[in-house]
Amino acid sequence: MKILISNDDGIDSPGITLLAEELKKIGEITVVAPLTEQSAVGHAITVKSPLRVTKHYINGKFFGYAVDGTPADCIKIGIRNLMKEPPAIVISGINHGSNTAINIIYSGTVSAAREAAIMDVPAIAISITSHEAVHFEFAAKLSARLAMMVINEGIRSGTLLNVNIPDLPKEKMKGILLTQQGKSKWDDIYEERVDPYGKKYYWLTGNLIQADSSLDADQFAIKNDYISITPIHFDLTDYKTYSAMKEWKLDNLLKE
Amino acid sequence: MKILISNDDGIDSPGITLLAEELKKIGEITVVAPLTEQSAVGHAITVKSPLRVTKHYINGKFFGYAVDGTPADCIKIGIRNLMKEPPAIVISGINHGSNTAINIIYSGTVSAAREAAIMDVPAIAISITSHEAVHFEFAAKLSARLAMMVINEGIRSGTLLNVNIPDLPKEKMKGILLTQQGKSKWDDIYEERVDPYGKKYYWLTGNLIQADSSLDADQFAIKNDYISITPIHFDLTDYKTYSAMKEWKLDNLLKE
Repeated sequence: MKILISNDDGIDSPGITLLAEELKKIGEITVVAPLTEQSAVGHAITVKSPLRVTKHYINGKFFGYAVDGTPADCIKIGIRNLMKEPPAIVISGINHGSNTAINIIYSGTVSAAREAAIMDVPAIAISITSHEAVHFEFAAKLSARLAMMVINEGIRSGTLLNVNIPDLPKEKMKGILLTQQGKSKWDDIYEERVDPYGKKYYWLTGNLIQADSSLDADQFAIKNDYISITPIHFDLTDYKTYSAMKEWKLDNLLKE
Repeated sequence: MKILISNDDGIDSPGITLLAEELKKIGEITVVAPLTEQSAVGHAITVKSPLRVTKHYINGKFFGYAVDGTPADCIKIGIRNLMKEPPAIVISGINHGSNTAINIIYSGTVSAAREAAIMDVPAIAISITSHEAVHFEFAAKLSARLAMMVINEGIRSGTLLNVNIPDLPKEKMKGILLTQQGKSKWDDIYEERVDPYGKKYYWLTGNLIQADSSLDADQFAIKNDYISITPIHFDLTDYKTYSAMKEWKLDNLLKE
């Protein structure tokens, strides 16, 4: 089984190294990951400049391909040019920090998996819920098991699984929950500062406002020490509003 | 009525200038747009470096704020720091080139409007279906009318309207259609080239494979000279797969 591995923290992050180690046990892996950290790049792709691909070695041994682009770039060029045949599955991670609720929109980790789903390849995005995560080994094992389950059960084209794992020892986790994207959002604050030359600049900070209170929301599940698995897709149509808008007199927009 | 205007082509593009001219007639406008072109940046936000904001002038007259970041950055900092009170509506565009089907995922124009929707502000993304678009005036007028309609009809929080307008004289357009996100996708090709120093690099090219054949799909509507209006949102949960996955034995993933 061919497995393509990527991430958004960069090819030399601990999360992807441990993930690759574990996935080697269940398949033939190819690592294609960003040369540099690409957090919060969303689903950016590189179109106005060319991409360069370099071979990345760990302790003198070939580890994978580093791309000077985004996570979505890595999946596209990995599947189109670097792999001889398409993978059976793409795994993106292990991300340092959770990707739940509104963060799914901004996440580079998720966008790598989503790009795979766009290319009709089943995909999983894996994150640990702490930027100083230490429990990668369990997360890597879980990734391998879930990959096998996805292959065995099958998943419809265009869907990926977004997995968030508490940064806890396994025995402290409460279990696994199937969830939906939560509604928690950031209260953004731009800190205004002045540089040594008297010019203003702004740093984005903020607080995640907890708007979820049910265990079927990804954000609430991880807050309560559960592993969260959310199926997501890229059909953005708001069907509820679509129905409501049938009553709008859109033709009036064309009248003089 | 306060209106926030942004885009992804950059603050000095013709599309945003003409849009601002027209929207001035129906409200008090604030322009906050990227300093440089930000096409295909998806929903990227700037978190690892600070943002700078400069005042942009056209013919010596203040036009708006240029931000050295992404379209989503512009909306966030526009609403949080640059405007005294939140706008009644955000309009993003007028983009040079269509944003239909899979391109909605990659679009910076749409991400600006989506960021507004995340911040509970009604929003419209406007694109003309040609990179060499010339029919901006009609598109700008339509934007103003649709903005009024959105304000009057109301739209639920979290939803934005994605509008694509054929680059045609008004009399050649067939009408306006309410649509869904189409299924057309790119067949990506990375052209391999060699630089003057003998090193390989890759340019992304490709063809949009037309997978839509019904007028309720955005991509097919514009191909047939209709204006397309699609309500989209940012709830990415795949509810169909969510239901199907209730049968999966996820607890098995935790067994030794």
